[in-house]
Amino acid sequence: MPELNNDKRDNRPGGDNWKAGLYDIIFETDTPAGRHFDILLIISILLSVLVVMMDSVSFMRADYGRTLYNIEWFFTILFTIEYALRLISVRSKRRYATSLFGIVDLVAIIPTYLSILLPGSQLLLVVRILRVLRIFRVLKLVKYMSEADLLMKAMRASSRKITVFLFTVLALVTIMGSLVYLIEGEENGFTSIPVSIYWAIVTMTTVGYGDIIPQTSIGKALASFVMILGYSIIAVPTGIVTSEISFASIEERKKRSLMKNCIKCGNPDHDANASFCKLCGAQL
Amino acid sequence: MPELNNDKRDNRPGGDNWKAGLYDIIFETDTPAGRHFDILLIISILLSVLVVMMDSVSFMRADYGRTLYNIEWFFTILFTIEYALRLISVRSKRRYATSLFGIVDLVAIIPTYLSILLPGSQLLLVVRILRVLRIFRVLKLVKYMSEADLLMKAMRASSRKITVFLFTVLALVTIMGSLVYLIEGEENGFTSIPVSIYWAIVTMTTVGYGDIIPQTSIGKALASFVMILGYSIIAVPTGIVTSEISFASIEERKKRSLMKNCIKCGNPDHDANASFCKLCGAQL
Amino acid sequence: MPELNNDKRDNRPGGDNWKAGLYDIIFETDTPAGRHFDILLIISILLSVLVVMMDSVSFMRADYGRTLYNIEWFFTILFTIEYALRLISVRSKRRYATSLFGIVDLVAIIPTYLSILLPGSQLLLVVRILRVLRIFRVLKLVKYMSEADLLMKAMRASSRKITVFLFTVLALVTIMGSLVYLIEGEENGFTSIPVSIYWAIVTMTTVGYGDIIPQTSIGKALASFVMILGYSIIAVPTGIVTSEISFASIEERKKRSLMKNCIKCGNPDHDANASFCKLCGAQL
Amino acid sequence: MPELNNDKRDNRPGGDNWKAGLYDIIFETDTPAGRHFDILLIISILLSVLVVMMDSVSFMRADYGRTLYNIEWFFTILFTIEYALRLISVRSKRRYATSLFGIVDLVAIIPTYLSILLPGSQLLLVVRILRVLRIFRVLKLVKYMSEADLLMKAMRASSRKITVFLFTVLALVTIMGSLVYLIEGEENGFTSIPVSIYWAIVTMTTVGYGDIIPQTSIGKALASFVMILGYSIIAVPTGIVTSEISFASIEERKKRSLMKNCIKCGNPDHDANASFCKLCGAQL
Repeated sequence: MPELNNDKRDNRPGGDNWKAGLYDIIFETDTPAGRHFDILLIISILLSVLVVMMDSVSFMRADYGRTLYNIEWFFTILFTIEYALRLISVRSKRRYATSLFGIVDLVAIIPTYLSILLPGSQLLLVVRILRVLRIFRVLKLVKYMSEADLLMKAMRASSRKITVFLFTVLALVTIMGSLVYLIEGEENGFTSIPVSIYWAIVTMTTVGYGDIIPQTSIGKALASFVMILGYSIIAVPTGIVTSEISFASIEERKKRSLMKNCIKCGNPDHDANASFCKLCGAQL
Repeated sequence: MPELNNDKRDNRPGGDNWKAGLYDIIFETDTPAGRHFDILLIISILLSVLVVMMDSVSFMRADYGRTLYNIEWFFTILFTIEYALRLISVRSKRRYATSLFGIVDLVAIIPTYLSILLPGSQLLLVVRILRVLRIFRVLKLVKYMSEADLLMKAMRASSRKITVFLFTVLALVTIMGSLVYLIEGEENGFTSIPVSIYWAIVTMTTVGYGDIIPQTSIGKALASFVMILGYSIIAVPTGIVTSEISFASIEERKKRSLMKNCIKCGNPDHDANASFCKLCGAQL
Repeated sequence: MPELNNDKRDNRPGGDNWKAGLYDIIFETDTPAGRHFDILLIISILLSVLVVMMDSVSFMRADYGRTLYNIEWFFTILFTIEYALRLISVRSKRRYATSLFGIVDLVAIIPTYLSILLPGSQLLLVVRILRVLRIFRVLKLVKYMSEADLLMKAMRASSRKITVFLFTVLALVTIMGSLVYLIEGEENGFTSIPVSIYWAIVTMTTVGYGDIIPQTSIGKALASFVMILGYSIIAVPTGIVTSEISFASIEERKKRSLMKNCIKCGNPDHDANASFCKLCGAQL
Repeated sequence: MPELNNDKRDNRPGGDNWKAGLYDIIFETDTPAGRHFDILLIISILLSVLVVMMDSVSFMRADYGRTLYNIEWFFTILFTIEYALRLISVRSKRRYATSLFGIVDLVAIIPTYLSILLPGSQLLLVVRILRVLRIFRVLKLVKYMSEADLLMKAMRASSRKITVFLFTVLALVTIMGSLVYLIEGEENGFTSIPVSIYWAIVTMTTVGYGDIIPQTSIGKALASFVMILGYSIIAVPTGIVTSEISFASIEERKKRSLMKNCIKCGNPDHDANASFCKLCGAQL
């Protein structure tokens, strides 16, 4: 999982005043200029994604194709300038260029340039949505940071249990899919084992498209078993994630409560029912 | 989030006896007259909504159209009188008229009047369902208040985490939708990126209409990934909300338990049925 | 909510030896005869339900109609004898006949008799499934009792919050259904407001039949909102029920732990960290 | 529930050096040879399952049928040799052959041999997926063991409540299915009670294929009730499983936290980073 706070202050250039000022505007949100820059950027990102979406709708492309094409180039050049400014204003260009944000910024501008050479690559422009991660920097970012941090912490803590669960689901859909392939057969729409596994996933996740449906009674009985199974075992990842979020929340709350620092050692971390500092033994 | 207890006693008129009495009947539920008024109002609201629903069914409109029209005007006039009585009986008319309840009451009567001028606005009558919030005032309101208050408190406490989650879902469906648009293409039903994002939402929320279905193998593989993703990440908002409801419930229970501190040792932690302090043995 | 332990020992007849013996066999599960009786009864119930199901399948009715009809009468007479035996062996016949079990037992036999007079009532026979509640009496009943008791206790404790939630869901589907009726109109399948509300329920509960589907872009946008709403707010009842089950489980565990009784007053109910009995103040 | 750690060290042969060495390679993962063996085995298992899947796709069978057939025999012989090596290297052959792993290993090779005699049994080859349980032995097995152990422990602890819940679901779908059969009838697709129960399962688990749909208004009303019911009661197993996972996690954390009691006051409740007892101030 990448660190959200990837553009650390230590990539801020030291000496040159105008470079450091530029860094503060682009990468930081403390100053009014920094906030304005980010709001402008977010609006540009959302608009550019909207343009890509509209361009894919045939009647819009028919009526406004040229306009959308021009707007798209406007945004591409805008984002290219932004990328260049970022490269200029950081201390280690390699570090920014290889970070997640750097790669996303690059991927966001490359397709339009490629489209001059290769037709059909304008769809990659939609990857700009990843840039919307920058919303966190403006919308009271620290608070969102702590929320997203808590969620990601809960995710990492439960990642092993979730992997075991996912593996079990994959094993189950493979077995169920093969069984229904055996029972229903190709004449009822279950043309191969992969297709049957696809049906098992559609059924166990309770999506239920209805494109492939068991016709035989035994097939319907097996389908009923798969449905009730999928309906019930959704409790497992929910239980895992709920536990982890609860534990992470409890630790957060403990830290925020009893803000009294220990007189002797300055430790703020005490339980609600503690009478003595657990790190130095002094009375609270 | 609006305060449910919006008609505070301090909007009760002071001097005039008949106005204050009217206020008590309409806005309060302490008196028998107040309770009767509210029960009559709730029944009227439910019946008027039912009339709107029936009026939309073509064979009912054909047979009973005129009757339904008359009943609808009856309710409109009834609610207009109620609105007028409310305006008369409060101390600050502006405060009631600009409150959520006031606006809902106004929106509830305007459409029928508009329908004389503009055809097609009788559907707005269904907004009267919002008036059913008044049920809380009669059905042992305080108890429901505390329940709804607890739920809304849990909602507010977890609103940031939920916003992060919703934003993630929107980003995911945009990316998945664009990918499947790329893979399946217009000839398989995925006619544009917005349509493909609609498919991604239908699939990730496990609704699964089946109106648009991936035809290619890679498309089905991507669909499987989206389904399992949607099936699994529903654990996240559930975990968030469950944590918050649990914490809010714990705090509620603490408040309801013995409000007294132990005289001897100051321990506030007692069970509801405790007579002696469990930490020092002193009598409570 | 009915008490599962409805046939209390105090409906056991006092004087007559054979009546009391009969009561023990039919209503109690302590004796081997009682257990055998119940196992036989459960098998009969399951078989009779199966017969009703088979009788509804047309090709089975064609081939085995007469046989199924005879077996059905066999079971009806069997259950009539059982009902008669129960009436005879209890002390207060009125108490049994008006209890939930008594009513279910009666409803289980009446349809077959009615079918001689009225055709089409044999479907009510399936209500015998309610009699399967007797499984609890045999399958280590007390343990199941405690489990079901815990679940029902959690249900009752959270019933108010759940009512608030259900009411909110009904209000939401009414509003969403009316909006989509307004947007899509009758030409797209949304023929009336009740039908549109039905669509809203199908979509918000993520069932997604696909029989009625929004055709317009705005309609699909509204549908997307409804889907994400339904997908997210399922966290609310889950949070409510999970909290209640957790609290009920904690209380159960507390009762089972620290089995030490207070020497002075015999109280077994202490917290894990208690040093003094909270009811009498004696040291533990 | 089988023990995952079924091949205990006490099935390891004592005297013979080469047999014990073989056992260590095949059954244990401590040595580099053991790890390599298991990784090779897992890759073989996954590839063989993939071959079975590809063989079921008609166009693949047409083009590559002979090649797939040969590869399948290659894997069968490979797994036969593995099975033979396992039988040779254990002390008690009966114990391995009757264990879950032993049966799975046998079932994995038998179908290909049977296919020489009976056509149509190559589908059983997919059961090899069960062999993928061996992944746990290599992928930092102990950690996954503890995760899977925790999940299985939570499952076993909640098994009674889950059985009560499943039984309730079955009873509900039977009753709802029969009611809709009564309301809709055979002319609307509900051709028998079993089919109607199948519809009830499809609806209550929110899968919603759309192959059978209520046509009448009362039928749609009943369907709405079933949908909201299924949508809501999913909270119950989730609540049960979440509680059990939380309790199991709490016990795990307690075991992992500081195993020492405070010398002075006997308090066992310390944080992981505590150096002083928080209740009395003594050093730990």
